[in-house]
Amino acid sequence: MRFISQTSSDGVTERLFTLGESPGVLWTPEDAVGARPLILMGHGGGQHKKAPGIVTRARRFVTEGGFAVVAVDAPNHGDRPKTEEFARIAAELRAGMVAGEGIAPKLVAMHTFLAGQAVPEWQAVLTEVQELDFVGVGPVGYCGMSMGCGLGVPFVAAEPRVRAAVLGLLGVDGLAETAARVTVPVQFLLQWDDDQVPRAQGLALFDALGSADKTLHANPGKHGEIPGFEIGSSLRFFTRHLR
Amino acid sequence: MRFISQTSSDGVTERLFTLGESPGVLWTPEDAVGARPLILMGHGGGQHKKAPGIVTRARRFVTEGGFAVVAVDAPNHGDRPKTEEFARIAAELRAGMVAGEGIAPKLVAMHTFLAGQAVPEWQAVLTEVQELDFVGVGPVGYCGMSMGCGLGVPFVAAEPRVRAAVLGLLGVDGLAETAARVTVPVQFLLQWDDDQVPRAQGLALFDALGSADKTLHANPGKHGEIPGFEIGSSLRFFTRHLR
Repeated sequence: MRFISQTSSDGVTERLFTLGESPGVLWTPEDAVGARPLILMGHGGGQHKKAPGIVTRARRFVTEGGFAVVAVDAPNHGDRPKTEEFARIAAELRAGMVAGEGIAPKLVAMHTFLAGQAVPEWQAVLTEVQELDFVGVGPVGYCGMSMGCGLGVPFVAAEPRVRAAVLGLLGVDGLAETAARVTVPVQFLLQWDDDQVPRAQGLALFDALGSADKTLHANPGKHGEIPGFEIGSSLRFFTRHLR
Repeated sequence: MRFISQTSSDGVTERLFTLGESPGVLWTPEDAVGARPLILMGHGGGQHKKAPGIVTRARRFVTEGGFAVVAVDAPNHGDRPKTEEFARIAAELRAGMVAGEGIAPKLVAMHTFLAGQAVPEWQAVLTEVQELDFVGVGPVGYCGMSMGCGLGVPFVAAEPRVRAAVLGLLGVDGLAETAARVTVPVQFLLQWDDDQVPRAQGLALFDALGSADKTLHANPGKHGEIPGFEIGSSLRFFTRHLR
């Protein structure tokens, strides 16, 4: 893990780093000392580790919850090079969207392709970040919507260090069996008028989660229109389960 | 409005009263001075104004939110006499439940019968309680599940003083048109494994609400098994909209 830069503002220290092929960013309380819970955030498709939705949540998790938060660019996203195979899968997905086809099978192909690489990368990130003395080995949470849910479900299912997850904005296609292996508490966000995820498919993914303790929050609006108060709700969810 | 008793414990003053035919209870912060938001709570079928689920929520709304909270026995419930007509409707509902029939039409009949009396009673309660100088004329919220939702939907639709409502544990049967006239922010609670309300009917009632700002919270478990953390969530919802 190699640190590239460090800046602080409004009580939050932000460190850019690389770990193997992953460019990442770590947010912690300014002057953090000792162990604390860590939240890994997974960004959406076409986005990156410092997308506004990531940064806004990360800063609140740090300032109001005292958490450490880490995000890395998913494979083929952000500052990372795009492979030919990814370009081909992405082109098929875009063509399906333009044609107005049911894109579920192409989305599944994309997420499956990316998850195979992202899951071990994120596991390595946890290991490295938890060796920092101002993060330490505390409980871990995961937060990711849309593609961040498509990669997050296999990650949470595979990684026993994760103790709670905020997921959502995705349907059950291709994920039912993996979701059944998720057993930690989950807060699941669904947009009632999602223009990318059919409502029934989103409800079915919530239903498929194996967790005994899971809670669905549904709000009116399209895919990207999660209301701001849900950030506070996610913060309280993580505080309840990681603190 | 005639006060019968007043007791205080743990920072909460509880006053029993009668207003017309309604026996009621008012909870306020001990030594409350001046105006504050008021929450009217509607209890479930067969329950009463001081059912445990009502008292627990009321005390938290008072101690953590500084709200005034009022509840009255619904017609034919609690300390009130039961009429012959009610006894007949209740017997038909019970017979349907025992026979394992779809009870929706009988539940609609029950709620329609009770709402005709409860809605004007509750409106009178608001008027009287808001004349007390330690409650005053502030924003009003409504909180009611199951039968408290069945009576609450017509109440909230009819009463412009209500500015936010927590509803849930009920299906859309007989309520679609009235629900469409509810336009204030709503937090709607649904039990994913409700043994009394089919999931699709509960989702359809949330869908039917006319409110632009509505949020669905669904949790695993049966009809009466709302997880405790939802009380805090209701409190924050009311604080967000009434404070």
